[in-house]
Amino acid sequence: MIKAGIIGATGYAGNEIVRLLLGHKDVEIKWFGSRSYIDQQYADIYQNFFRLVDAKCMDDNMAALADEVDVIFTATPQGLCASLITEEILSKCKVIDLSADFRIKDVKKYEKWYGIEHKAPQFIEEAVYGLCEINREDIKNARLIANPGCYPTCSTLSIYPLLKEGLIDPNTIIIDAKSGTSGAGRGAKVPNLYCEVNESIKAYGVATHRHTPEIEDQLGYACGQEVMINFTPHLVPMNRGILVTAYASLTKDVTYEEVKAAYDKYYKDEFFVRVLNKDVCPQTRNVEGSNFVDVNFKIDPRTKRVIMMGAIDNLVKGAAGQAVQNMNLMFGFDENEGLKQIPMCP
Amino acid sequence: MIKAGIIGATGYAGNEIVRLLLGHKDVEIKWFGSRSYIDQQYADIYQNFFRLVDAKCMDDNMAALADEVDVIFTATPQGLCASLITEEILSKCKVIDLSADFRIKDVKKYEKWYGIEHKAPQFIEEAVYGLCEINREDIKNARLIANPGCYPTCSTLSIYPLLKEGLIDPNTIIIDAKSGTSGAGRGAKVPNLYCEVNESIKAYGVATHRHTPEIEDQLGYACGQEVMINFTPHLVPMNRGILVTAYASLTKDVTYEEVKAAYDKYYKDEFFVRVLNKDVCPQTRNVEGSNFVDVNFKIDPRTKRVIMMGAIDNLVKGAAGQAVQNMNLMFGFDENEGLKQIPMCP
Amino acid sequence: MIKAGIIGATGYAGNEIVRLLLGHKDVEIKWFGSRSYIDQQYADIYQNFFRLVDAKCMDDNMAALADEVDVIFTATPQGLCASLITEEILSKCKVIDLSADFRIKDVKKYEKWYGIEHKAPQFIEEAVYGLCEINREDIKNARLIANPGCYPTCSTLSIYPLLKEGLIDPNTIIIDAKSGTSGAGRGAKVPNLYCEVNESIKAYGVATHRHTPEIEDQLGYACGQEVMINFTPHLVPMNRGILVTAYASLTKDVTYEEVKAAYDKYYKDEFFVRVLNKDVCPQTRNVEGSNFVDVNFKIDPRTKRVIMMGAIDNLVKGAAGQAVQNMNLMFGFDENEGLKQIPMCP
Amino acid sequence: MIKAGIIGATGYAGNEIVRLLLGHKDVEIKWFGSRSYIDQQYADIYQNFFRLVDAKCMDDNMAALADEVDVIFTATPQGLCASLITEEILSKCKVIDLSADFRIKDVKKYEKWYGIEHKAPQFIEEAVYGLCEINREDIKNARLIANPGCYPTCSTLSIYPLLKEGLIDPNTIIIDAKSGTSGAGRGAKVPNLYCEVNESIKAYGVATHRHTPEIEDQLGYACGQEVMINFTPHLVPMNRGILVTAYASLTKDVTYEEVKAAYDKYYKDEFFVRVLNKDVCPQTRNVEGSNFVDVNFKIDPRTKRVIMMGAIDNLVKGAAGQAVQNMNLMFGFDENEGLKQIPMCP
Repeated sequence: MIKAGIIGATGYAGNEIVRLLLGHKDVEIKWFGSRSYIDQQYADIYQNFFRLVDAKCMDDNMAALADEVDVIFTATPQGLCASLITEEILSKCKVIDLSADFRIKDVKKYEKWYGIEHKAPQFIEEAVYGLCEINREDIKNARLIANPGCYPTCSTLSIYPLLKEGLIDPNTIIIDAKSGTSGAGRGAKVPNLYCEVNESIKAYGVATHRHTPEIEDQLGYACGQEVMINFTPHLVPMNRGILVTAYASLTKDVTYEEVKAAYDKYYKDEFFVRVLNKDVCPQTRNVEGSNFVDVNFKIDPRTKRVIMMGAIDNLVKGAAGQAVQNMNLMFGFDENEGLKQIPMCP
Repeated sequence: MIKAGIIGATGYAGNEIVRLLLGHKDVEIKWFGSRSYIDQQYADIYQNFFRLVDAKCMDDNMAALADEVDVIFTATPQGLCASLITEEILSKCKVIDLSADFRIKDVKKYEKWYGIEHKAPQFIEEAVYGLCEINREDIKNARLIANPGCYPTCSTLSIYPLLKEGLIDPNTIIIDAKSGTSGAGRGAKVPNLYCEVNESIKAYGVATHRHTPEIEDQLGYACGQEVMINFTPHLVPMNRGILVTAYASLTKDVTYEEVKAAYDKYYKDEFFVRVLNKDVCPQTRNVEGSNFVDVNFKIDPRTKRVIMMGAIDNLVKGAAGQAVQNMNLMFGFDENEGLKQIPMCP
Repeated sequence: MIKAGIIGATGYAGNEIVRLLLGHKDVEIKWFGSRSYIDQQYADIYQNFFRLVDAKCMDDNMAALADEVDVIFTATPQGLCASLITEEILSKCKVIDLSADFRIKDVKKYEKWYGIEHKAPQFIEEAVYGLCEINREDIKNARLIANPGCYPTCSTLSIYPLLKEGLIDPNTIIIDAKSGTSGAGRGAKVPNLYCEVNESIKAYGVATHRHTPEIEDQLGYACGQEVMINFTPHLVPMNRGILVTAYASLTKDVTYEEVKAAYDKYYKDEFFVRVLNKDVCPQTRNVEGSNFVDVNFKIDPRTKRVIMMGAIDNLVKGAAGQAVQNMNLMFGFDENEGLKQIPMCP
Repeated sequence: MIKAGIIGATGYAGNEIVRLLLGHKDVEIKWFGSRSYIDQQYADIYQNFFRLVDAKCMDDNMAALADEVDVIFTATPQGLCASLITEEILSKCKVIDLSADFRIKDVKKYEKWYGIEHKAPQFIEEAVYGLCEINREDIKNARLIANPGCYPTCSTLSIYPLLKEGLIDPNTIIIDAKSGTSGAGRGAKVPNLYCEVNESIKAYGVATHRHTPEIEDQLGYACGQEVMINFTPHLVPMNRGILVTAYASLTKDVTYEEVKAAYDKYYKDEFFVRVLNKDVCPQTRNVEGSNFVDVNFKIDPRTKRVIMMGAIDNLVKGAAGQAVQNMNLMFGFDENEGLKQIPMCP
């Protein structure tokens, strides 16, 4: 039984870490960090935990926390983890950071896209990008995990096999992504109000969204060259779920079976990645509440492009679930321990 | 490890039994019955189960099924279970019927409200009404369970303590209930289309809804006299959840503490019933996906009435979850085995 | 052509006044008041008005505004209109106040339920309660209109005929109301976020909601005696709409035709009130975007109660539409001018 | 005052034609055709029209109808209009067909994508594609209008100026479209049930959707060469609205002002097309209930692509509204008569 602390436990991702860890047989939560709700009962903020969690919200003292726990999850705004982390902390416990602070290896690129100064560049090199299906071995030995963003997780896993196998042209990739509203967080802002989001869809952050360089980095590692993409996220009136629809030109004539084989090569033994049957389109409802990633593709022989699709629950595989999956790898637990929730539908 | 069969596995309640039993350590599903989808892969109908269920839909031959399994769940339209059940079946396996066939002891009342002839009245007396918190001991020894309706479950548990303790006048009870749309089932009917339900609320079955006599029976048992209520269900644009708002006149001046004590008397050791903190109103999101029942109340000193509120997930505590809870009691498993899902929010 | 000014034009009710007045042939909007967005283009805040409104938000200087316009709408928080209004303003232009400031004749009752001191009690007596179907003649000559609350409008119109005709016992009235989320306003608060409201329903303000005394006053006027009710509002995951389900004991045996006749007596010549056909339940979608009120009822011979139901669009008949209807009466326009929008469905 | 008949008046598009024509000062509806609901009161099917429409549903006898009316709208499944239309009908009245029957000039292409035989190829040449902003003059003199599809309307208007001006490469166009659920029609099918659509998003018809050739034809006319695109529609959990996000490679370096000028060149005098301010993304809520098309674009200097975005209400500009706009042009009415509805928000 290991001990875990969560900094940022009252955001939607933090709350989801709580839900998952409560069902994990090898972990005990010792610290519900929340700057906004210090000293309030956690279950008063998230009443779904009434009688399941009996603890008060604590501050975000990462140094003190490191003395008490084996692993710290930081589900906090960009910059906070970098401003708190120290060598001493990392020497005492493992850190899984759900923010973007350690995802991008080039600190200048990070600072440009995020518009803030990086406070702990010395740990960027060491941090392992926690996309478990791709970096599994490195994750096992890591002290500091950069837990991937929701869009990058879904995008990369949808595209990775074809890019790795050289079946698509890296310069032609366009990613049109759609996200449920929990991705916008729990901040009290007018654009996130029910009546502002409901019964509407819009694009946002067009050509400027911060997940762009993260996706480009990961795709670049896959194909061994620099990649530049278009990435357009959209806000969808639903709580959870990300759907990625990605387009790329094929590098040669391929059959359904050849492309399917590429996906199977990388995913057939992956518990969480499900390559769907022919012509079945991923939909977010089929992964809701679970750590699954549903992917599929369609070849368009007319345009010689392939359409790649992927669906995840943004709060699970796109955040808290993948963080727990990383923790499982780091501590030698079964990779899917605590993550066997079956998608709930409807 | 016991074996279970489900007749009606492709309805929303049947599908939810599958979800719950897949996470139950002592049960194996042997039969996915579905008259509409015979020979089709179950996971093609409910793609959330892709790679988790590898079985085809079977017919609804209850006699054949009884030879293969220890327990049969019938999640079928009214009348079907009654038309299939026999003494031989009951001698071979336990039956948990999610329809209304065996919920009402007075067969004439059943036939009047449901408008169909009862085909197996000989089993009505034997059948145990599976409201676990109230009939636990009888359930343990039952062969045939009448699994309660969704509205009756939420209504009865919300009102029971005050009625049992004589704090409210049985002749003044008014139940105004609100349900998510999954309660309407998966039948392809115009009124259940997305665009017919979304962005609207309406009452239906006003003064005529079939759950009325079931609720009246249960409340009558609680107070030892005949009870006649008004029950008005409403259709709400959401997938899951039932909220009950019930009104009754107090029989005497009472304090918050006295009423709270009445609830605690019956529920303080119940795992699934959560009496919320003072002034916290139950909301369906806090029980979604779980078998919990959140209840609370408010005394109105001006009108000398009490407002009793309860929230459940209609597919879990209101159907499949309670069915599994009944099964656990019948087979001596931990009552909450397979039912520890934490409400998912948002 | 008269001139209108709106104080509070960037709230949901203010925005709806703009939508309605833009389609009104006899009114020109001269002033888009908004304390929060002064000097910003109104159409930047509400982009549905792009190219339709070319004006900047102004401050809330009611005295200056009175010199420029014929009518002022105050769609502002409780207390603001009372703090700004003067005899001089009323001598120059008409005022339609959408807040509660002048709805309740007993200033002590107002101050108790609203928890604020009333700053202009001298105008309470003069103010006319703008429920057009009931107070039409007084409205025509009013200088100051207290525009009714959304719940009181729907509740009163649903119950009025039966109470006025003595068919129901005033002491038995219970009102269970359900509202879309726009009723909560456009304030940036966590409980109004999309992910907090979506896929859930809850009661709020149980036994304490501020619309209670307003409804009680109106019902009291109808039956000529003091009335005390239970009123329970609920928050529904939809943008617009209020549904009222009201219960009361019948004072005698009545037929469907007798009750129908009571509704027809008061409403058969009313353009905006539609008494539906037998057994058709009002639903909010059928009035969405319009000033209609759909009402109907069901007699329960078992319990000798009647269930009265009403549906409105909370932003139209429950706020802006009724305000425009009041303006039409005050200025001698056709009562439905600018209010002929046909409900949009789906 | 002209007379209109609607064949298919009980579908969502037909119902919307009724809503719009009821507010049109120069048109009277004489015929509510509906094969499914013959002899039933129209207002019993669509209760939003209670007391506004007093007429029964009629059959779909187009020949008889032609004797009674000046214009016929066919809001029917593919193939029906082609099977009913005759020279005699066209000699008596104008026909606006909302189906795809006369949209595609190449009958072989039509038959291939739609999988049915065309029953009236002799009228294809004559039919005018009713995209009013582009084919206005031809529409004025037409007898038979092929009313554009919802996706083609939004896609074409979003892309047209840049393609016409040679700013984008026709071979690089990718259209990722998102639609509300009313686009799927009112048929009672399981995939359109509330609980199947709500809280989910999915692509459908990937690389095979029937609107593809229609869009390609229109884009081809714009640039004077054959165009082949990728078009991927998605189903979004909302009632109304289409959002198009289109991608194309720029043919040269351009500034924001140059691209803006291209849009303004074609749209600055168009009442219904609104080119939004810089960096404002179209969202469907801002056009809901109206005939507006909101368009905008974003240049990505990194990838040298432009992202073009457009939003419409699929039932208005995407169907009924455009049909009425066509009717206005054909009969010499003001083009926006009956179409001045202001978008309703929220």
